Amino acid sequence: MPRWEPNAAGRLQQAAIDLFTAQGYERTTVAEIAARAGVTERTFFNHFSHKRDVLFGPNSDRLTRVTAREIAASPAGTTPLTAVLHGLRAAAGEVLDGLQEPAARRRGIIEATPELQEREESKRAALAAAMAGALRDRGVDDTTARLAAGIGLLVHQTAEHRWTEPGAPDSLPTLLTEAMTALRTIIDT
Amino acid sequence: MPRWEPNAAGRLQQAAIDLFTAQGYERTTVAEIAARAGVTERTFFNHFSHKRDVLFGPNSDRLTRVTAREIAASPAGTTPLTAVLHGLRAAAGEVLDGLQEPAARRRGIIEATPELQEREESKRAALAAAMAGALRDRGVDDTTARLAAGIGLLVHQTAEHRWTEPGAPDSLPTLLTEAMTALRTIIDT
Repeated sequence: MPRWEPNAAGRLQQAAIDLFTAQGYERTTVAEIAARAGVTERTFFNHFSHKRDVLFGPNSDRLTRVTAREIAASPAGTTPLTAVLHGLRAAAGEVLDGLQEPAARRRGIIEATPELQEREESKRAALAAAMAGALRDRGVDDTTARLAAGIGLLVHQTAEHRWTEPGAPDSLPTLLTEAMTALRTIIDT
Repeated sequence: MPRWEPNAAGRLQQAAIDLFTAQGYERTTVAEIAARAGVTERTFFNHFSHKRDVLFGPNSDRLTRVTAREIAASPAGTTPLTAVLHGLRAAAGEVLDGLQEPAARRRGIIEATPELQEREESKRAALAAAMAGALRDRGVDDTTARLAAGIGLLVHQTAEHRWTEPGAPDSLPTLLTEAMTALRTIIDT
């Protein structure tokens, strides 16, 4: 019977971020991550199937799920873009609140590692696909669903980029609103 | 001295698309692609460093280069989004004209292969980064540059998706204009 390991996944993620920041992603082994988190390598592989996955779960997937759920729960008659922005703001509050500092360190690691950038892009594509799917389920046509989801993804990316810069404001939902305002200005100019 | 092989890269791409469509990406070998194109395996590796690369060059890179060049060449005072849309329309006309049918088959292969989807996402990210860079070189601030490039990428993706559907109109520049109109409608609703 496995030993009870409270929040092993969270401790492994924290340990991985510490080690990747200090010595680089490529040079860090799974054994070192497990040792720093105080668990066995086997426990690592119970939670993640590859070293790179430790930076991509479970929050990326939760963000996607909560966003889609909130789009689905929007009142009938809500416009597609309003539903998307509501979903993203709700998910930012529910999933990412309090995680600004690890998110900023995580971004530094990903930007330094092409393999991780490819994975990050594919997680973003999954978020966009989930938002478009949630809109289609509400009867929105395919082109409108893709475009509204794409605008949402762009607003999310812009806000997250700002949120993970040194000295940034700490409310991601507020930054989402600001990014949407900036986008409207660009379109209307 | 190597034998003169007119348009070996183009013939290898055509052969690869034929084979990937007929028997799947995973089951096709580089040797088979080279044989169908009438060249040696060594010639394949003179042009591409990996089987997956045969679907991603040189047109993806040319599209990115021409778009950035046209953004740079826009008259002073052109708004960021106008410059981006001009760049994408010009590049679509210069690089992708006449390639609708192979583009549609290429899309089918990529959608069936997660490894290729990751690569496609990273090529898209490179296009967005090049557009944002060209705007920053014109003195546009970083957030506006990212957002205008992101809108351009979304419009490009939407138009290309439509262009590669069965029975689609054949002018990609026209579809770019239509996608931008649809995006404006979603923002303004």
